[in-house]
Amino acid sequence: MEMIEQANAEALQRLLAGDPVLIDVRPAGEVLADLGDRTILHAGPPIEWSRMCGPMRGAISGIAVFEGWAKDLDDAARLAAEGAFGFQPNHDFDAVGPMTGMTTASQPVMVVENRTTGNRAYCTINEGLGKVMRFGGNDAEVLDRLRWLRDVLGPAMGEALRQSDGIPLKPLIGRGLTMGDEMHQRNVACSGLLLRALAPDLARVMTDSSALAQALAFIAGNDQFFLNVAMATGKAITDPVRNIEGSTIVTAMSRNGTDFGIRVSGTGDEWYTAPVEMPEGLYFPGFGAEDANPDMGDSTIVETVGLGGFAMAAAPAVAGFVGAGAASDAALFTRSMGEITIGENPEWTIPALDYQGVPTGIDIRLVVESGIAPTINTGIAHKEPGRGQVGAGVVKAPLDCFDAALKGIADRLGIA
Amino acid sequence: MEMIEQANAEALQRLLAGDPVLIDVRPAGEVLADLGDRTILHAGPPIEWSRMCGPMRGAISGIAVFEGWAKDLDDAARLAAEGAFGFQPNHDFDAVGPMTGMTTASQPVMVVENRTTGNRAYCTINEGLGKVMRFGGNDAEVLDRLRWLRDVLGPAMGEALRQSDGIPLKPLIGRGLTMGDEMHQRNVACSGLLLRALAPDLARVMTDSSALAQALAFIAGNDQFFLNVAMATGKAITDPVRNIEGSTIVTAMSRNGTDFGIRVSGTGDEWYTAPVEMPEGLYFPGFGAEDANPDMGDSTIVETVGLGGFAMAAAPAVAGFVGAGAASDAALFTRSMGEITIGENPEWTIPALDYQGVPTGIDIRLVVESGIAPTINTGIAHKEPGRGQVGAGVVKAPLDCFDAALKGIADRLGIA
Repeated sequence: MEMIEQANAEALQRLLAGDPVLIDVRPAGEVLADLGDRTILHAGPPIEWSRMCGPMRGAISGIAVFEGWAKDLDDAARLAAEGAFGFQPNHDFDAVGPMTGMTTASQPVMVVENRTTGNRAYCTINEGLGKVMRFGGNDAEVLDRLRWLRDVLGPAMGEALRQSDGIPLKPLIGRGLTMGDEMHQRNVACSGLLLRALAPDLARVMTDSSALAQALAFIAGNDQFFLNVAMATGKAITDPVRNIEGSTIVTAMSRNGTDFGIRVSGTGDEWYTAPVEMPEGLYFPGFGAEDANPDMGDSTIVETVGLGGFAMAAAPAVAGFVGAGAASDAALFTRSMGEITIGENPEWTIPALDYQGVPTGIDIRLVVESGIAPTINTGIAHKEPGRGQVGAGVVKAPLDCFDAALKGIADRLGIA
Repeated sequence: MEMIEQANAEALQRLLAGDPVLIDVRPAGEVLADLGDRTILHAGPPIEWSRMCGPMRGAISGIAVFEGWAKDLDDAARLAAEGAFGFQPNHDFDAVGPMTGMTTASQPVMVVENRTTGNRAYCTINEGLGKVMRFGGNDAEVLDRLRWLRDVLGPAMGEALRQSDGIPLKPLIGRGLTMGDEMHQRNVACSGLLLRALAPDLARVMTDSSALAQALAFIAGNDQFFLNVAMATGKAITDPVRNIEGSTIVTAMSRNGTDFGIRVSGTGDEWYTAPVEMPEGLYFPGFGAEDANPDMGDSTIVETVGLGGFAMAAAPAVAGFVGAGAASDAALFTRSMGEITIGENPEWTIPALDYQGVPTGIDIRLVVESGIAPTINTGIAHKEPGRGQVGAGVVKAPLDCFDAALKGIADRLGIA
């Protein structure tokens, strides 16, 4: 239909016009509008405590202790089951969070402004690898790190960024694509580029040499530091694409460890969900598929803007890391994603494909017609609370979400 | 001949066993053995003033002023012509230098130790791009930068490195190869990885916030910062490969802007030279081939250990930068260099080639038999003194050097 084509052209134009800039770090309670007391934002579509998976429950217990809402993890779990906390999706607060995606009032969030449209998106600071809250970790080491992010690194990053003109992320990500990153399971290049951009200003605002050295070492030691920046970038770019009447372009894909949900431009904030799938991947020594939790996190927002599994060709080294086959086959994933997208991003290009742009603008009609599901590169959490990351892999978005969304938009447009 | 095969196997083993670690930065006069007064070390094989090219003369005039050996550039040129300075190759002092390759007593040099063999190699700190001394620049801005390197950055880097265990370079370069660097004309990834490794220790030793911020910004702002580290790495790895009786493996390739020279293991420190060629490449806006100086610098030491043009497949983005054709053709260069080398480096691998190691161990017999000359990725200097960099390109090592070296080794072995 002509009207759908026009709506999708507008959606693609907005996706490509996004101009994300990292401008600040602030406590979530200061910048997330209407974040209520004892409210815990989580990854994925809405979910109640009784249906939450192990790592999500573990993270919720941990963050409740961190916020001082419970005296210990058991107390937190009891309170959660009793309904003492409000649970809401990050996506409803202009925010995103990796894996369990915990966002609460006192946590610092990075602020990414889309300078084309003026909207802002938020994401917490990446904690590092292994036993961390986003993978369900919740012990003293995990909470101490969150306190240091809240008390030291977050405020310092905020002050450094406010003294700068902000860090433009579109060219930084473009450069990362020429350096082997796909911005989901491989962020080593962009993490380094971000540190380069941030370090001089951090040095100016952190006068305690020892604290500064610790801050630099923390960022330098975390190859996934940029992931959360990439996620806020994705959210800042996709939010203005919502609510274009008739558009069949995906504006969000997200998972809470139980359900996979997508949002489509023409149907606004409606979630279309299906049971989440298990990643297929590689496990850290001592772990296997029997330990794995199903797919989880808001991080699929990067695939929604053409990165992650869609940009696999830029990151041949990630193909091995996530168990997706030979490095030389990485281009096949990107080509396949070209089948379900309506454009390419001329500012995010892949040298090995002679500067072809990343496939952008997932059209649910193309997904349903082709039966090709979006490919997602993901981390794998242990299924039990408190354990942390056990591997990394590739997972498919469930096709049922796309079928349901297509029916939803057909209903709205009055098409049989 | 069996004896040559055995000698070359030993040479390859030493090339692959090298374990380079960046351990210190010191004034050249403190660490280069027997560096005489008023001695200027330069890139390439030996050359007298009368045969030096424009940028080499420009750099010599500049460095003489910097060292206080002349009152201005004209005075320096007059003194140089009169024989007031000693000119010697970097290579004879365990050192290497990019382009003009100026090394003098008061300049800080980075110290790379080969922990397998204990030898050390030295290279100055990279000055950045554009109008810099390595490209023949010599005005006040160039000399001021050298003073800052001498007085601020060099001592700080040295103190930071001495407080650390050193920075192991073999894994760092291995990682850079998965991030689009070939370590000659593209060092953005390794420069970032080095900054990540160095920044926390720099923060500990530089208590002046403003000076620290300037140091971090200088390193962060120079995508070629790592080039000089890669060069010292190459020198530290190749020096122990010298003087294996009967070996036809290249231990150095180098150019002074007039002559191209190679050294071969079985003939020790003998240079085999031929007139240097013109790079073919791309020029910065406002410049063209008529401005270009012929090929120059010790930086070809990186090709000697399998990086640079030999590792082009790792760096598809560099192919366009140096005008070597389509990004997707980058692998052809690496495959071609496989024809003239006797091994691959299992610790320096290329994801896009399914982790094939970089071609290592240039055998002059294979070069002469195949007629395939080593491919070198290089910067291009303006032919006049004081102008600086005008482009980047690809150049071939002249085959005459290899013919002459093969005769040399045949004579030494008493083969007709």
